[in-house]
Parts: sequence; structure tokens; C-alpha cells
Amino acid sequence: MVQLYEDERLDYLLAEDLRIIQSPKVFAFSLDSVLLARFAYLPIQRGTIIDLCTGNGVIPLLLSSRTKAKIIGVEIQKRIYDMAKRSVEYNQLEGQIQLVHDDMKNMPATFGYGKFDVVTCNPPYFPVKEQSMINENEHLAIARHEIYCTLEDVIRISTDLVRPGGKVAIVHRPGRLAELILLMKKYRLEPKRLRFVYPKLGKEANTILIEGIKDGNPDLKILPPLLVYDHRGEYTVEMKEILYG
Amino acid sequence: MVQLYEDERLDYLLAEDLRIIQSPKVFAFSLDSVLLARFAYLPIQRGTIIDLCTGNGVIPLLLSSRTKAKIIGVEIQKRIYDMAKRSVEYNQLEGQIQLVHDDMKNMPATFGYGKFDVVTCNPPYFPVKEQSMINENEHLAIARHEIYCTLEDVIRISTDLVRPGGKVAIVHRPGRLAELILLMKKYRLEPKRLRFVYPKLGKEANTILIEGIKDGNPDLKILPPLLVYDHRGEYTVEMKEILYG
Repeated sequence: MVQLYEDERLDYLLAEDLRIIQSPKVFAFSLDSVLLARFAYLPIQRGTIIDLCTGNGVIPLLLSSRTKAKIIGVEIQKRIYDMAKRSVEYNQLEGQIQLVHDDMKNMPATFGYGKFDVVTCNPPYFPVKEQSMINENEHLAIARHEIYCTLEDVIRISTDLVRPGGKVAIVHRPGRLAELILLMKKYRLEPKRLRFVYPKLGKEANTILIEGIKDGNPDLKILPPLLVYDHRGEYTVEMKEILYG
Repeated sequence: MVQLYEDERLDYLLAEDLRIIQSPKVFAFSLDSVLLARFAYLPIQRGTIIDLCTGNGVIPLLLSSRTKAKIIGVEIQKRIYDMAKRSVEYNQLEGQIQLVHDDMKNMPATFGYGKFDVVTCNPPYFPVKEQSMINENEHLAIARHEIYCTLEDVIRISTDLVRPGGKVAIVHRPGRLAELILLMKKYRLEPKRLRFVYPKLGKEANTILIEGIKDGNPDLKILPPLLVYDHRGEYTVEMKEILYG
């Protein structure tokens, strides 16, 4: 049993045998988080992973099916943290996933510097000045806009948290790629794997997946294009595999 | 009539009604140059374009079919510059294409700062330390390795030559993308268009095409993936169009 508030729903979490609490007015996970959870390299048997801007915990939940590592999820919004916590409890994953209601900027002080093997983050995509913010409620605005953390905060804190040789995986929009690479280089995260998500052949990419290694050697790979839809408008084989297993 | 030396050949230049002098031992153009010539935005009716590391002049020759702008090609190797010059003469394009035998680093002093609308460059891809250099003759080694110009030289000189708002288009390897973006940002070239060339679906990209605008606003677009071969191992429709018109 799980307590659901207001317009919350207990949704199936895709390919995994998991459920997740969502709400259209407060927080619902995006395809980008699903793609990031699949993109990130993980230690399988042990280790520690931290997911910043975890929202309703979708990334820790998805990662739990791929690793036995301990996973921390950090969410600054109490209301959304609470959704994540209930989902983890519903799935009986409290032994593996720990949720923290706090500002990510406090995490190095809380957990120590260079302690994590992997950091993941699906951060707010938009600068605070964008028009799109005006029509959003506070929950959605904070999740989507750089109100409590900028891209530089995300990169700086990720570097602080990850061990040398550890990996940081981030999903973002193409328009921010140059800035993202600049910031990663500035904070000693060497970009190593970059994958572009194209809605379909012939279209511009709308999402980027990037992984950096702390203090890694420069040698960036551009992974095969990830196409979401085929020419008939149906999910490609790879997307179906990611979504439904 | 044209004078051909040693193992030089007078090859057809793809879709265009042009010929080009090549030699397997001295210089032969690559697919990358063809892709760059098609990728670059050009002024159509007037303006000035400069192609650095022009080799046998393949990029100026290809660009001449798309623009009436004046095109300068700069090549540091006398032997290869001479091939380019004879090709331009053979095609009777001396009125549009001017070749310069010099170090690109002298070009701002020669032509002035900020005078060009567009700069193109297919630079040497490999650091001088790479093993692959050992088995090459001097001509090929200079064309492929950063012996006379580093990537930073290329970016710095391109910025010096292009006008504010003008475009710099470069082709390179994925492994250098992070460095390339860093250098472009350092020298006020804002990355605006980025296209990845994948040998086929499911494969990593092996070539990148990038265009920056001097003093442009940050807003990078990732263009549709360019696939070279289809699943049958034949050129894709787009590649056929680029190669054969």
C-alpha cells in the first residue's frame, strides 16, 4: 500500500518491474531521464552512485535494476522528495536507495569529497530568464529552470563528489553543449562519451547524453546516433528495447 | 592541356564539371573535404572566402560551383600548392580562385584582420607524436600531422581573418571535439552548427563538421546525422547527392 496525494498516480516504470509515483502538476519523469539511466556506465557488484536533481527518483529506481551499488538520490523540493521516498518504499528498495532532501551544494560536506564512483544528473535545462517559466507552477519551474542550481553548480558539485577516474553522466539540450564541455574541462571532467538523440532520421538532435571521467585522458567518442522514431512514426527497435525491455 | 608530374592524375571532381590534379604519393583529397565544402554556409553573389590548408585546392574548386565570391586558398607545401594552381588554371578559374604559397600564420598580415566572410579549413588531424607519422613521406606527414600548424593555430588564425558575424567551418575527428570547442570559445568563435558523420547506423561517428560565428550568440544546433552507407553497404541517398549531384 502507498499513500497518494492530490493528482498523484502510481505508474508502471517501463521495462522494469517497478512502480513510480507521478503527478502532472508536481513532477513526472521524462524520456531524457530514462535515456540517461541507460546511458550511464555503472559498477555492477558494488560501489556508490549519487543522482543529483533526482526528482521523483526515476533514475535511482531505474539504475537499481542494473547494479547492486548503493544509490543516493538528492532532491531539493520537499514535495517531490516525498514522492521519491514513497516510491522507493513501495518498491522495497530502501536497502539500496537512500533519498536526501537537501540542496545538492551541501552534498560534498555531507558525504565527503571524491567518494562516489558515478554521478548522474538530469538538471534543469533552462536559464531563469526564459519566458516559458511564467506559466509554470513553482514545482515545475524549479525542476525545469536554473533557479536553485546552474549548470556550473551541477558540474562543480559532480566533480567534488566523484572520485578520480569516476564517471559523471549528464543529459541536456544541444544548445548548451559548448558550455557543458567548457565547464567539464574547467572542472577536470574529461568528456569521454557523447551520444546524440535524434527524433528521427533527417531531424536535428534534441537531446545530448554526455559522460566525463574525472582527470581522464582526452579522447572523446561520439556514439552511434540514437533515433527515437522510425520512418513510420513508430519507436525504433533500440527505443523499444530501452523502454520495454 | 595541363602538365602532370610523376604519378599525378587529372581526376574528375565528383558532381562538379571540374577536374583536379591528384597524386597518391603527394596529395589526394579526402571525403572530409568534400563534406566540408558542402557543409559550409557561403555568400552567393559576392564576398570573400579563404580556405586554409587547402592542399590541392579541392575545397576552393568545389566552393566555386556554389558561389561567385572570391576564394583564396593557402597551402604551405610548394609541391602541393603547385598542383592546386595547375588545377585552377586547367578549370579556368583564375578569375575566382587565388592560390597563395605561404604559411597560414602570415595571412592576417597579408590580407588584413577581419576581412573575410567565411573561413574553411580541413586541418592536419594528428598530433606530431603519433606513431602513424613514421611511415609517411614528408608531403603526407605535413598534410596529416600538426607539424606546421596546430589546431590552436588554425582557430586563432581563422578568427583573425574572419569578420565579426562571419563564419568559420572546420572538419575534424571526434576525439578532438572537446578541444575544438574550447579553442573556438577562447578565440570568440561561437559554435553554431555541428554535424556528425557516421559510417552507418549503429556505428560511432568518425568525422565532425563544425561551424562557428565570430562573436555569435551561444545557441548550438546539432544537425541531422549524416550517414555514409546504408544497411546494404551502398551510399545513402544524401551521400550520393553530395558526391554525384
